Amino acid sequence: MGRTRHEVDSLAEVEIPSEAHYGSQTVRAIGDFWISGIPISYLQRLIHTPAMVKTAAVLANARLGDISTSKASAIAAACDDIAACELRGEFPIDVFQGGAGTSTNMNISEVIANGALEHLRSSRGPYDVVHPIDNVNLSQLTNDVHSTAIRLAILLAHRPLDREPRQLAHELEQKASQFANVLKLDRTQLQDGVPVTLGEAFGASATTVRKDIVRLKELVSLFREVNLGGTAIGIGINTKPDYARIVIKKLSKLTQLPFLAANNLIETCWDTGSFVLFSGRLKRTATKLSKISNDLRLLSSGPHEEPI
Amino acid sequence: MGRTRHEVDSLAEVEIPSEAHYGSQTVRAIGDFWISGIPISYLQRLIHTPAMVKTAAVLANARLGDISTSKASAIAAACDDIAACELRGEFPIDVFQGGAGTSTNMNISEVIANGALEHLRSSRGPYDVVHPIDNVNLSQLTNDVHSTAIRLAILLAHRPLDREPRQLAHELEQKASQFANVLKLDRTQLQDGVPVTLGEAFGASATTVRKDIVRLKELVSLFREVNLGGTAIGIGINTKPDYARIVIKKLSKLTQLPFLAANNLIETCWDTGSFVLFSGRLKRTATKLSKISNDLRLLSSGPHEEPI
Amino acid sequence: MGRTRHEVDSLAEVEIPSEAHYGSQTVRAIGDFWISGIPISYLQRLIHTPAMVKTAAVLANARLGDISTSKASAIAAACDDIAACELRGEFPIDVFQGGAGTSTNMNISEVIANGALEHLRSSRGPYDVVHPIDNVNLSQLTNDVHSTAIRLAILLAHRPLDREPRQLAHELEQKASQFANVLKLDRTQLQDGVPVTLGEAFGASATTVRKDIVRLKELVSLFREVNLGGTAIGIGINTKPDYARIVIKKLSKLTQLPFLAANNLIETCWDTGSFVLFSGRLKRTATKLSKISNDLRLLSSGPHEEPI
Amino acid sequence: MGRTRHEVDSLAEVEIPSEAHYGSQTVRAIGDFWISGIPISYLQRLIHTPAMVKTAAVLANARLGDISTSKASAIAAACDDIAACELRGEFPIDVFQGGAGTSTNMNISEVIANGALEHLRSSRGPYDVVHPIDNVNLSQLTNDVHSTAIRLAILLAHRPLDREPRQLAHELEQKASQFANVLKLDRTQLQDGVPVTLGEAFGASATTVRKDIVRLKELVSLFREVNLGGTAIGIGINTKPDYARIVIKKLSKLTQLPFLAANNLIETCWDTGSFVLFSGRLKRTATKLSKISNDLRLLSSGPHEEPI
Repeated sequence: MGRTRHEVDSLAEVEIPSEAHYGSQTVRAIGDFWISGIPISYLQRLIHTPAMVKTAAVLANARLGDISTSKASAIAAACDDIAACELRGEFPIDVFQGGAGTSTNMNISEVIANGALEHLRSSRGPYDVVHPIDNVNLSQLTNDVHSTAIRLAILLAHRPLDREPRQLAHELEQKASQFANVLKLDRTQLQDGVPVTLGEAFGASATTVRKDIVRLKELVSLFREVNLGGTAIGIGINTKPDYARIVIKKLSKLTQLPFLAANNLIETCWDTGSFVLFSGRLKRTATKLSKISNDLRLLSSGPHEEPI
Repeated sequence: MGRTRHEVDSLAEVEIPSEAHYGSQTVRAIGDFWISGIPISYLQRLIHTPAMVKTAAVLANARLGDISTSKASAIAAACDDIAACELRGEFPIDVFQGGAGTSTNMNISEVIANGALEHLRSSRGPYDVVHPIDNVNLSQLTNDVHSTAIRLAILLAHRPLDREPRQLAHELEQKASQFANVLKLDRTQLQDGVPVTLGEAFGASATTVRKDIVRLKELVSLFREVNLGGTAIGIGINTKPDYARIVIKKLSKLTQLPFLAANNLIETCWDTGSFVLFSGRLKRTATKLSKISNDLRLLSSGPHEEPI
Repeated sequence: MGRTRHEVDSLAEVEIPSEAHYGSQTVRAIGDFWISGIPISYLQRLIHTPAMVKTAAVLANARLGDISTSKASAIAAACDDIAACELRGEFPIDVFQGGAGTSTNMNISEVIANGALEHLRSSRGPYDVVHPIDNVNLSQLTNDVHSTAIRLAILLAHRPLDREPRQLAHELEQKASQFANVLKLDRTQLQDGVPVTLGEAFGASATTVRKDIVRLKELVSLFREVNLGGTAIGIGINTKPDYARIVIKKLSKLTQLPFLAANNLIETCWDTGSFVLFSGRLKRTATKLSKISNDLRLLSSGPHEEPI
Repeated sequence: MGRTRHEVDSLAEVEIPSEAHYGSQTVRAIGDFWISGIPISYLQRLIHTPAMVKTAAVLANARLGDISTSKASAIAAACDDIAACELRGEFPIDVFQGGAGTSTNMNISEVIANGALEHLRSSRGPYDVVHPIDNVNLSQLTNDVHSTAIRLAILLAHRPLDREPRQLAHELEQKASQFANVLKLDRTQLQDGVPVTLGEAFGASATTVRKDIVRLKELVSLFREVNLGGTAIGIGINTKPDYARIVIKKLSKLTQLPFLAANNLIETCWDTGSFVLFSGRLKRTATKLSKISNDLRLLSSGPHEEPI
């Protein structure tokens, strides 16, 4: 403890804290990208989902005979540890990085490799037994792993995004009944307007939230299409012909989510359309919630008293 | 010509160019809101569509016996003139205004009233015969007229928004075939990457545009729901019980577009959700077109020659 | 009238309305860039100031013996016409264009060439007498003409930007005195807060506007540095050694504004720092005005009456 | 350890981890505002500077006889601990909160109160000895403490903001000399343009960075004016007449920075002008760095090789 181990990569020897599961690429990335001071460990879901994608990848590789069963089991077990929120402190690199997530992918691969070594009752470090790139990242590239992992993260986040607006709509509907007979003056340009009931106002808010529950649900289908197996720019370099089909099947089974291979892997590799659309949806919901909140804030405002 | 006529409104007497079809409220708005220097006449569609909504309104009012057939015909004829791009120069107020479009609504109503007077072979001005508010704006408020007119404008703009991406996708597909065998180096972070064919690159662009054609079409359904007949804040003040139903039917027939009364007129009066969503869609398409353009720009860039 | 004249440029023959002062490049740009539908003639100051820069340029060229006195006088006279708001309708190209303003520069150069021909009692068209590029654009490029013209436009706009806030601050100070003894409740998070006088509230608004008058003034010095004479990328290609010095002196005399040659013309050619800073200043003033307006809007809001 | 202590506030009894220095208001804020999942402890400077402001406040209160010397010393010692980066883990509330920083102010005040109790060799909790509000927050409000603390934070951040651009400009100037004779083709719209030396390109970048060093320095004077002592809305409620003068003097001495009382404390309480201006400056520098980086990225890009 408190001591260091060393890794020699293609450039030089790198010193690593002896208790760390990460390796030389992570240490380099800490030095290269200390921008916001907020480590990726603060965005747990964006660590869990690459680990889940890598589980699917190692199972596909094992099925194709490209990795031994024992190594594959050890790697899958290390992935499970991460997805189960263990090894939380092992992701120290900054949330802002160059290179489209390559450093995140390497950080995760190194932690998985060393975690797998421990599952094999080895010490951390001997990458000739389990290698972060040759074994953990086999048939993968940041381009397809992270593109898929982010989609998976959004799909997993969908549950609260469905539940919370539902609860809000329900509460607003309760208020609509409760205040059905309370008359208030509406405002036009903040000036006194026509009379409505407070119940009608809450009812309109409930209606608008209910509409968004439907819209947010439609989105799920947009994130089912993934470019997993496309590697570099969607042309599947360094993968076997059957790999893409198998890895997507494994990921679907693992997550109980119906992923599909994109029709055009090149397009899905660079297209951000689904994210732009999702952002538009969230903006729509945010606009509505902001309007509802401001109405309530104004409604509860004074002046209630005279200044003296 | 060159002389002026006068109108007395609740505040004072206002001087109006004698050749103008607009009236005192328009003259006041020019003075109050000279912000950008760009008049609403530059946004022709946002003048045509309120005129179309007002045609539907006057037909509904005539059907309910609230306006004489002759006046209604004259008003409808004046609305048609505007929708047919006549009287273009009669909309001088600034595109930026306070009051959620009230000045635009008044500008249009005044031009329609004076246009209707001319159709009745009267001079412009005698509002006791055709009145901008009491007749032209009958059963209406800016709140429901403009909210509906903007939706109608988007629906009418949908045709080019469908046609242009279709043509672009077709052209990109032609290039994909034409360049199917031209090899080029892809770039990763602007550095030389793996080889792909130029055809594959064009094919991915075609795919991404084709996806947006589908998405943009889905939107039409969002703008069918209107709050026409809701007037003030959606509670239909100053309208007869059947008015909302009839006016929406008239507008649907007039435009050949299937409008529906919103379930909750209060909500539709203030909700901007459809517009936020539409903006998100356009942003998505814009993001894609920008990416495609930048790729072509880079592809056609040099350096082609040595500096000497 | 209603007929057309023709120009043959390097690509083809172009048809031009016979009454137009613009030429083939303008007609091409109308076809290439019909994006917003708002012509550059709507931004009069961005037409006047390039004309002023071109006056300085032609005077410098005459001084260096690169153009005859008679041609130079005719060109300068045509520039004066534009700066005096004549020929307003001759700038039909769209405000959005590719190419960093090249089309605007050509539109203006063509109108000046044909205007100069008229001053020389010629018909429009014979560019062998006065040429838009060889004579009107001599020793210039869009890069340095427009970069300088935009700076000049901001400096000319400075007067109202100084006068209007001064008047506002004065009015706010009057109200501060007038309401010195009117007590009101301040609000914290829209809830009733501690008592202050209405005069104190107006006084704080006056103070904040006064501060910005000072800040806005500081900016003038940022726009004095120009890259005029730098042509292409600041290296002065196609200009005589003395041209830069002379043209800046002529522009300073013409505008009564103390322009300076930038120390590093390459940097000034591409640097947008002064504009970003100016935008930040305007944003600051806008933020303050928005806060003051919203406070007044809230202060004058109700509820004034009970709903029944 | 692992046990809890209890605090009873005006609403109810709150359970607090026994090892925590924070108290009931912090625990409530964790429950109310769990928005981003990123605690304020990640923004250390925004914890250190309120602690420094509170040191100045307690010294001023002691000087005015409003707190005993022993309590004041204990409070100042606890403030010093925080400013020296101790007690880092004691600030668990979310960076996003309602109420303009009230929760941050309470979190810091509670940690200081309990820290002061320990300096007085007491256990944590007995607020009748040292009270977070009555003693630690005496003569203060979030409104003036945080407004001042943020200004102090910017002033303290000024040193790296001066040093880093200086170093960058120096490096760019070195490259300008080194590459003075390396010719390259400039690009216009990404196409081959006129030849310049690589040294000239680096020189222009150096010039533009040097300009910003000057601009960034000017800003310091904007943040010297503070509303400390203004409390609620700038009218100094709950402070003695001399307090404002003394506390600003103490803060200036403590930080070696020349703070001044704002002329109009009401205005400074709500005005965000300095921050908008500072944001504009940073945007300017960011725009320049982005341009320089993109130029280098393009310059180092290929295509270097043929696809086969």
